[in-house]
Amino acid sequence: MTTVTVLGLGPMGHALAAAFAAADHPTTVWNRTPGKENGLDATVAATAADAISASPLVIVCVRDYAAAESILDAEALKGRTLVNLSGGSPEQARAMADWAAGHGIDYLDGVVMATTDAIGGPDAALFFSGPAGVYEAHRSTLAALGENTHYVGEFPGQAAAFDASLQDMLWTSMSGVVHMFALAKAENIAAADIAGHAKALLGFFPDMIDLLAGQVGADSYPGDHGTIDSAAATMDHILDAIRARGLDNGVLSAARAEAQRAIDAGHGEDGFGRLAAL
Amino acid sequence: MTTVTVLGLGPMGHALAAAFAAADHPTTVWNRTPGKENGLDATVAATAADAISASPLVIVCVRDYAAAESILDAEALKGRTLVNLSGGSPEQARAMADWAAGHGIDYLDGVVMATTDAIGGPDAALFFSGPAGVYEAHRSTLAALGENTHYVGEFPGQAAAFDASLQDMLWTSMSGVVHMFALAKAENIAAADIAGHAKALLGFFPDMIDLLAGQVGADSYPGDHGTIDSAAATMDHILDAIRARGLDNGVLSAARAEAQRAIDAGHGEDGFGRLAAL
Ligand SMILES: NC(=O)c1ccc[n+]([C@@H]2O[C@H](COP(=O)([O-])OP(=O)(O)OC[C@H]3O[C@@H](n4cnc5c(N)ncnc54)[C@H](OP(=O)(O)O)[C@@H]3O)[C@@H](O)[C@H]2O)c1
Ligand SMILES: NC(=O)c1ccc[n+]([C@@H]2O[C@H](COP(=O)([O-])OP(=O)(O)OC[C@H]3O[C@@H](n4cnc5c(N)ncnc54)[C@H](OP(=O)(O)O)[C@@H]3O)[C@@H](O)[C@H]2O)c1
Repeated sequence: MTTVTVLGLGPMGHALAAAFAAADHPTTVWNRTPGKENGLDATVAATAADAISASPLVIVCVRDYAAAESILDAEALKGRTLVNLSGGSPEQARAMADWAAGHGIDYLDGVVMATTDAIGGPDAALFFSGPAGVYEAHRSTLAALGENTHYVGEFPGQAAAFDASLQDMLWTSMSGVVHMFALAKAENIAAADIAGHAKALLGFFPDMIDLLAGQVGADSYPGDHGTIDSAAATMDHILDAIRARGLDNGVLSAARAEAQRAIDAGHGEDGFGRLAAL
Repeated sequence: MTTVTVLGLGPMGHALAAAFAAADHPTTVWNRTPGKENGLDATVAATAADAISASPLVIVCVRDYAAAESILDAEALKGRTLVNLSGGSPEQARAMADWAAGHGIDYLDGVVMATTDAIGGPDAALFFSGPAGVYEAHRSTLAALGENTHYVGEFPGQAAAFDASLQDMLWTSMSGVVHMFALAKAENIAAADIAGHAKALLGFFPDMIDLLAGQVGADSYPGDHGTIDSAAATMDHILDAIRARGLDNGVLSAARAEAQRAIDAGHGEDGFGRLAAL
């Protein structure tokens, strides 16, 4: 079993180290603040450089790229593989890949799309990008982290780009869900009474996502399933209802403004997917 | 079989009339612009008042409430049941209910949550509100319109309020989906390559909606599944990625601003559902 080092023992780093250890990988850990290794079947290193020197495969999972940079020792990492699972943007991933290349470090950039309790199980999705050979060399070890590990390409920023795109949808939608509950509450509709209808409505999303993916792929946006004009009219009704209750209307107003840009550009009769191509 | 009148033969009114006729209800129709009754097994009335006089149950489905008001004849409607399926806000529904009450007209306000091709089938959801006795009297007739007809209460604005709340989530989420495709495209990720991951991510939404509904119901928002602070940090990463590609960031920026309001109010350690109670 490959020896693995995990730098960073916040909630996520701790879960990653636990998953490696549970998969019988001898695991070495280090954290800036000592004493975070409770419950881990792992060797605790005194310094980050010591931890790095213990394994050919080094995982770093801290708050952000700046924190990762502050603890990574280029000398110690030379000739090893570094996998960064700290969250950040595609630009930051590209910059760190350049730094690693400049120091003779094999580098994979990865993202975790899972909560800590899902790590190692069927619901944890992880994305990795970087040199295919480096990924192949460590694929079976990284598989300890979750049953959905996806290699998404050579470009170091690709994993972060998948993450940013998916999280964009996720947090925009989350914001729609909580706003639905807020408006329902203002209209004396109990959360429990609307939840089932919301789930039924989201049941149409998989087909809709496939439909939109086909349209974006073909760069063709027929309006036969509904036009931007009609979506805009619907949003106006909803905005009236939101304003009448004095709720924050920032998110839907911004969505309405994007629709207006498409309408002003002459695309009002196109399908809503056209907004992906403005 | 109850005789039914449908006023308005746009795409939706036409689909409603076709569904009543298909369920063997003798159907009378009228539309402002003549000649829209093609393919319908229905009697065409010469005036709106004639159409109204033909049936105890009158459905109106036109562009909006103003259009409905312009064609409804209070004298002819007196003693009959009017069901308005034109889209609008809860306020407009309440105003029309008052108008109907003042003229001795039984009134139900309804909304259609379906595309025209789904009308009459298993995927068409319709919501109705108004006096329970009026709904009961026409329930079996209205069932011709779809297999998911929901009576949501006596208050005339309730159906429109369900609609506004659900559409709020729908169009905010739709905007998140198309923006995901836009960002992916800017990062050289093919729509077909991200669609499956997006569907997998949305697969977590039903459980998440139930979790949030429970929190809103209890007005208690523990942060143990993730805090507003961490969501805000994630949104900042996504916004960096969006800005780096020069894409419109209005929607997510507005969502981020709502999160900031919660943080400024001291709720950063709470769960995201707290935003439903600001
Ligand atoms: N938790 C989740 O559900 C989740 C899900 C997906 C992705 N992620 C990502 O995983 C990463 C880690 O998240 P987390 O949940 O473990 O909590 P976090 O609060 O984001 O990170 C805590 C870790 O970062 C370290 N750290 C912070 N600032 C540092 C600095 N300046 N120098 C050195 N170390 C520093 C902390 O060390 P100290 O103990 O010394 O402070 C600790 O090890 C984040 O990028 C996050 O976006 C988390
Ligand atoms: N289509 C859908 O998928 C869908 C889904 C859910 C809800 N709805 C709702 O259903 C309602 C009808 O929608 P629709 O799809 O049939 O198309 P629409 O374009 O919203 O409405 C067309 C109908 O409205 C009539 N109309 C418009 N302005 C009028 C006025 N000033 N006076 C009299 N009649 C007027 C039109 O008559 P003319 O033919 O004379 O112009 C036609 O009968 C809307 O409120 C919409 O929000 C539609």
